[in-house]
Amino acid sequence: MDIISIEDLSREFILKICKRASQIDEAEQRKERYNLRTKHPRKLATLFFEPSTRTQQSFKAAITELGGLHEGFSGTDTTSVSKKESIRDTIKMFEAFHFDAIVMRHKKDGSVQWAADVAKVPVINGGDGENEHPTQALLDLYTIYKQNKGSLDNVHIGLGGDLAHGRTVHSLSLALSKFKETTIYWSTEYELGMPEYLIKKLQSLGTKVIRKPSVAEVMKHVSVYYMTRPQLERMQGLLVDKIPALIEKYRIDMKKIEDLNGVILHPLPVNSELAEIEPDVFFSKKQGFYGQAENGVFVRKALLYTLLDETPHTSFDPHLSENLHTGNNRLQRNPGNHKTNMVVDTIDNGLVIDHLKKGKELFVADALQLVHKGYDRVLASISTKKTAFLKTNLPDISEREIRQVCLISPEPTISIIRDGKVIDKYVPLVCDNPNCITRDVFEDIPAKFYDDHGSICCRYCKHPYTIRSHKVSRDDQERYIKTLPEH
Amino acid sequence: MDIISIEDLSREFILKICKRASQIDEAEQRKERYNLRTKHPRKLATLFFEPSTRTQQSFKAAITELGGLHEGFSGTDTTSVSKKESIRDTIKMFEAFHFDAIVMRHKKDGSVQWAADVAKVPVINGGDGENEHPTQALLDLYTIYKQNKGSLDNVHIGLGGDLAHGRTVHSLSLALSKFKETTIYWSTEYELGMPEYLIKKLQSLGTKVIRKPSVAEVMKHVSVYYMTRPQLERMQGLLVDKIPALIEKYRIDMKKIEDLNGVILHPLPVNSELAEIEPDVFFSKKQGFYGQAENGVFVRKALLYTLLDETPHTSFDPHLSENLHTGNNRLQRNPGNHKTNMVVDTIDNGLVIDHLKKGKELFVADALQLVHKGYDRVLASISTKKTAFLKTNLPDISEREIRQVCLISPEPTISIIRDGKVIDKYVPLVCDNPNCITRDVFEDIPAKFYDDHGSICCRYCKHPYTIRSHKVSRDDQERYIKTLPEH
Amino acid sequence: MDIISIEDLSREFILKICKRASQIDEAEQRKERYNLRTKHPRKLATLFFEPSTRTQQSFKAAITELGGLHEGFSGTDTTSVSKKESIRDTIKMFEAFHFDAIVMRHKKDGSVQWAADVAKVPVINGGDGENEHPTQALLDLYTIYKQNKGSLDNVHIGLGGDLAHGRTVHSLSLALSKFKETTIYWSTEYELGMPEYLIKKLQSLGTKVIRKPSVAEVMKHVSVYYMTRPQLERMQGLLVDKIPALIEKYRIDMKKIEDLNGVILHPLPVNSELAEIEPDVFFSKKQGFYGQAENGVFVRKALLYTLLDETPHTSFDPHLSENLHTGNNRLQRNPGNHKTNMVVDTIDNGLVIDHLKKGKELFVADALQLVHKGYDRVLASISTKKTAFLKTNLPDISEREIRQVCLISPEPTISIIRDGKVIDKYVPLVCDNPNCITRDVFEDIPAKFYDDHGSICCRYCKHPYTIRSHKVSRDDQERYIKTLPEH
Repeated sequence: MDIISIEDLSREFILKICKRASQIDEAEQRKERYNLRTKHPRKLATLFFEPSTRTQQSFKAAITELGGLHEGFSGTDTTSVSKKESIRDTIKMFEAFHFDAIVMRHKKDGSVQWAADVAKVPVINGGDGENEHPTQALLDLYTIYKQNKGSLDNVHIGLGGDLAHGRTVHSLSLALSKFKETTIYWSTEYELGMPEYLIKKLQSLGTKVIRKPSVAEVMKHVSVYYMTRPQLERMQGLLVDKIPALIEKYRIDMKKIEDLNGVILHPLPVNSELAEIEPDVFFSKKQGFYGQAENGVFVRKALLYTLLDETPHTSFDPHLSENLHTGNNRLQRNPGNHKTNMVVDTIDNGLVIDHLKKGKELFVADALQLVHKGYDRVLASISTKKTAFLKTNLPDISEREIRQVCLISPEPTISIIRDGKVIDKYVPLVCDNPNCITRDVFEDIPAKFYDDHGSICCRYCKHPYTIRSHKVSRDDQERYIKTLPEH
Repeated sequence: MDIISIEDLSREFILKICKRASQIDEAEQRKERYNLRTKHPRKLATLFFEPSTRTQQSFKAAITELGGLHEGFSGTDTTSVSKKESIRDTIKMFEAFHFDAIVMRHKKDGSVQWAADVAKVPVINGGDGENEHPTQALLDLYTIYKQNKGSLDNVHIGLGGDLAHGRTVHSLSLALSKFKETTIYWSTEYELGMPEYLIKKLQSLGTKVIRKPSVAEVMKHVSVYYMTRPQLERMQGLLVDKIPALIEKYRIDMKKIEDLNGVILHPLPVNSELAEIEPDVFFSKKQGFYGQAENGVFVRKALLYTLLDETPHTSFDPHLSENLHTGNNRLQRNPGNHKTNMVVDTIDNGLVIDHLKKGKELFVADALQLVHKGYDRVLASISTKKTAFLKTNLPDISEREIRQVCLISPEPTISIIRDGKVIDKYVPLVCDNPNCITRDVFEDIPAKFYDDHGSICCRYCKHPYTIRSHKVSRDDQERYIKTLPEH
Repeated sequence: MDIISIEDLSREFILKICKRASQIDEAEQRKERYNLRTKHPRKLATLFFEPSTRTQQSFKAAITELGGLHEGFSGTDTTSVSKKESIRDTIKMFEAFHFDAIVMRHKKDGSVQWAADVAKVPVINGGDGENEHPTQALLDLYTIYKQNKGSLDNVHIGLGGDLAHGRTVHSLSLALSKFKETTIYWSTEYELGMPEYLIKKLQSLGTKVIRKPSVAEVMKHVSVYYMTRPQLERMQGLLVDKIPALIEKYRIDMKKIEDLNGVILHPLPVNSELAEIEPDVFFSKKQGFYGQAENGVFVRKALLYTLLDETPHTSFDPHLSENLHTGNNRLQRNPGNHKTNMVVDTIDNGLVIDHLKKGKELFVADALQLVHKGYDRVLASISTKKTAFLKTNLPDISEREIRQVCLISPEPTISIIRDGKVIDKYVPLVCDNPNCITRDVFEDIPAKFYDDHGSICCRYCKHPYTIRSHKVSRDDQERYIKTLPEH
């Protein structure tokens, strides 16, 4: 089992983790600690491609207190894990070194799902880009569970800080919507409110979302107020001189929490310069975030215990499983539809890449290194047509080359010609989330999509994909979607 | 118990540590090692905000040989402990992760005392700025104790290298002065001699300080010669082309140690380029510094053993203790003395910040963001007065804001006005050691002072503070000093 | 015992390690792990002056699975091990901290041999510059041993990639030549072929070296094909635009391995951008390099087990052994041969440094800081002579100074004058491999040479040294070589 996204985890699993965390928590109060039952110490690989202190140290504390070991890296400057080694190879290396589980953080969305696909041992997402950070969500849930007397039903929570950009708030609110009678309060007094699409989604899941005129008003209705960091780097619309006033409005101070009958949570670290939480509040009994940090250890211990206790030691398998090899991103088109026009006739064997953006055909030819490798290239940009095409006697095109072509000009049509006939014709799709790991050509990750109620979503970053090319008919699309697995 | 400064440690405690280190040392010769008696492995957090190899590895060896564990960081580049997270929060995080003790190094003076104030678990100073490095002093003392047949009385020691700037020599000589019949020899042949104030202080403590005309002469009288690194970066008065001749004079070579009946010590590392100790000396039987490095492990084991053996496991307390919240840096002045002049009459509620340096009043007003927050500001610089003042209807001023004001213009007078009356009037003091951690606005450390025989000293960096403002009368000062705790 | 170079290891030792690795490998399949039998956990110091992930993690996995511990550093940015601390002192520090063995990587050739000379505990070479990486060679041999049914005789291996520059291929082929009936196949279809000198050396050792016209042809004859990284940074003769075509030729793809009845090995990491191994090959059953990575753990466990199991704990010796102190790099010349000419007569005591390159005499005088230290200097460049000389009343010259002089002008003649007579006359030699650690003046490593069948070789980097100076007669040379130890 892998832990990639909080949304993948069932209500039952979340409650099981909360219950186990609670047992571990109580044991700690009795000065007891659980140990993983196993013949040899279990080893956790901590692969932090992006530096981290809190998440990393919390995992290290967890595995260590369970009697296990850990190794890994934090940041890639002092290691040889550079841009030149693929995630796939890094994962296989750590498997070869007999790690029993992996926790990974990486700046690209979907990277950890790919690592989990490669690995035979459990992989836990320690944060993939702006995408997911499920153990943060789990520790938040456990903190609320504890505050809410051992339940996640009937939670009344306030959300604060940067509701527009923060991943934490997004994940947490969706996770709470798995439970009964959730009510989310937030204040409209500043610009960084909850996005409309998220409110709608939460409501569709049965969660009440209630706006209040001020933070102080929100406090009156909740037992937990979850504050988040301002994501200044993402507030591009804002004028710099408006920031102090904005921070002033949403900063948590003693006055705002006067009527709170509960605790303030925060994923930490608090930005000590902006001080989105006033220093005075740190001394209040309503400060709940230091305890929340400790809960992170209990939750991670509960997770590792669930994944590793009494499970057999996994022998290293030096082979890659076949299902990593191919994607499902080829939208087939009917070769029969193709008019064998004069231009194609001039090659008997090779390929045609059509529906390229005008002006991009030369870049595509260069990316394929046709001249260097000694193949023909015919580039055509016909004034009466909207797109350009490339024709070559290059016998085949690799997956990596297809990805390169798509990044230069999305949704090309590729036709394979043998003995003058089109024997295959398809449109390859590449996820269009610019931060998706599958767009890194050198990682060689076969693009995979799934069908989420009729919309095409990337297996890795989960972003929906919309087909743009007018050449792909509604029928073609529907036929393609039918080939995709459901999520 | 925390280990912050060698000067805080009693003669008895130092001897206790030396004795225990000696037992551990002898056990090592018998191939025996002590283990901390405890239910779960004890965990040491190694928080090296400044990179370190020697001190860090020595602590790691110590805790590991005692059967414990460690985690932490060295340098903050590969962690997310950045300038934006406060020391307070970093310390609470590591406490939340169940560490049993903390060793910390930081570039700011007094930072580790603050960490110790925050932490419930023992904190050991691994070096705070140029201030203190007590475990280095302890290992030096143990090395001398061993060389001096198990005693720290009657020590005859030579000091060499940079006596003018080195912290090591300063700490060590003061620590030796706690013991009987200490004699310190040094040579006047070069410019970097012992500072006059230190010689006086040592003599007042009963230590003999004797100058000799040459290093070779010093060697004749001592059983230990303690050599230190040249602090080139701090020798600003020196001409660069004088350095070779200077180093030549104080460099330890075979000729200089001819008459030494004892050993050369050095805190290491030796600068291999300057070679303040000649390569030949490394091969001499009089070389004592590699053994001194091993003693570092014994002393740190003795310390950790003393702090952690059989002590109960500390449960994490997520709250901050109240006494961290307030400083004692407000020098009260009599509000009755205040002439309610015309200018103040114009505000009924608000505050007056007086005795600002002329020209600084605008910076103070900007720091308080009066305009951004929508408050009045009246700035006055009267030609007949030496100082300027600021008047505003801002109802209150936070501790952080007071610190900001003091850094712009020290020793302002702050008057709080309610219903047209001055209800409070005080001068806030901020430590004036530029490297003191309390001057970092965003760390939110309430300034605390203590009374050291009538002089005001910073609790954190220990620097004495001299009141400059002529507005603070001798009576005001004395009244204030009476409110301070003794050290 | 130290592990510095694969060439030093006997056939018997290699087979012993393979056999033990094989036992550990089989135990792993049975979910069993060996533990080092020892009173206290054994500690491995991991001193990676150059960053490393694979080698470092592999060693960590090995010592950890054996029940031991490790500490150290990777890269020197986050430590205080800077250029200013000598290797000697770093090694003594880690010994003082009670490490039982050391693995070290450093960018300079010969550095690890020097570390091994300093250390009393076993030192393992984790890579010294471009020189040696014996544990890589051992794991390659074990992988071949396993593939070859438990034997290293009768190995038929193909070598690919950059045969001209790669250390791996060089070490591996020489190591295989220790065994019977080795046949090495390689393809001539690209420019980076095996160097002629290596082929001759292998043939002289009884190994068959066979060229084939293509990589695909090589595949037909081997059970192991060893592929290596292109060393682009060392292909200075190559035009950048030729690289794609070159890579194309030697890249391993499915077509090339069609006739391979065996496995592809690679030291990893594969460069994911150049893709010297095609992504498709990773999925083939002929992919052997992930298993090879796991073998690295088995081999390193076997090595550590061999070095550390049941050996007694080594007490730290704070002294440096005398034999580190002096080199054997002084080629004595007959003082009697010296004509006491007018120029020398003018000094009674001091030294003459002769046979300096013209124009370098001033740099030599400056390096000796004669003026700063207050000594005479007479520089002479006589028009009728090819070289220059320096005469001074400096009474003696240190080893470090000799090294500095040699780096400015190699093979000077140094004459020591006492009471007007030449009492000693010699030519000091310094290794002329520019990357040799002994050329780092501040490391203070006495140059040592050995006699390898009449040629003078550096003890540290093993490069042969050729005497250039025509002033050194054939007799002088032969007399000198006789003073050297054999290897």
